[in-house]
Amino acid sequence: MTPSAILESALYVTDLAAAEAFYRDIIGLQALGKVEGRHVFFRCGDGVLLLFNAEATKIPPAPDARLKVPPHGTAGEGHLCFAATAEEIAAWRKHLAANNIAIESDFEWPQGGHSIYIRDPSGNSIEFAEPRIWGF
Amino acid sequence: MTPSAILESALYVTDLAAAEAFYRDIIGLQALGKVEGRHVFFRCGDGVLLLFNAEATKIPPAPDARLKVPPHGTAGEGHLCFAATAEEIAAWRKHLAANNIAIESDFEWPQGGHSIYIRDPSGNSIEFAEPRIWGF
Repeated sequence: MTPSAILESALYVTDLAAAEAFYRDIIGLQALGKVEGRHVFFRCGDGVLLLFNAEATKIPPAPDARLKVPPHGTAGEGHLCFAATAEEIAAWRKHLAANNIAIESDFEWPQGGHSIYIRDPSGNSIEFAEPRIWGF
Repeated sequence: MTPSAILESALYVTDLAAAEAFYRDIIGLQALGKVEGRHVFFRCGDGVLLLFNAEATKIPPAPDARLKVPPHGTAGEGHLCFAATAEEIAAWRKHLAANNIAIESDFEWPQGGHSIYIRDPSGNSIEFAEPRIWGF
């Protein structure tokens, strides 16, 4: 058996309000849901980006909770990569510069295809890359 | 501007060999690349699941490195969700039981759609869910 796709990808953030503003206003994603102090969820294509406050999600569900979502949560700088064509990467460069977001790294892979990297407000390493870096 | 998709999702693992065996043999993913002691990458649909040893990825690139991949790495239990239809979730239940993988939680969401949760060998919370839990 093999899953057909990744449905949800998670990042943990230290300031949910700053993360919400960043992924909404700079990255341009559409919010799907929010629980103050715990999480903000965004749609991205056929998937969902989950932004969690680990201090809240590490707490196990109550014994009588109907939705027993298992606890989880990380500390440190995570990683996520958004798909982008070469033309989109050029447009992201301009858009990020206009919003004073520094590009930390910008290079062509040996196998062909380009990546640029920025940091979200919590220090997560966010990449924009051409899918062809993976041969697809 | 809005990204069209999430291309790469990352999990951090404490035992790369155990993670590689789990995602290959139990989850059924196809490996795309591997650097001993640092990472194993798997294809999943149109995306890529990156499994990292944070102790290796936290080390910044050398000043003269051609590919200046920014450092990153987390500690703790992350989260990822694979897409699955109701029929696939039923099949995953049997497959996981046959491989002695305990299902930690199993419930229907109020908005419709089912999720089951397991742990990978590093304690990451791995979910299988119907995309309709997000309304798509």
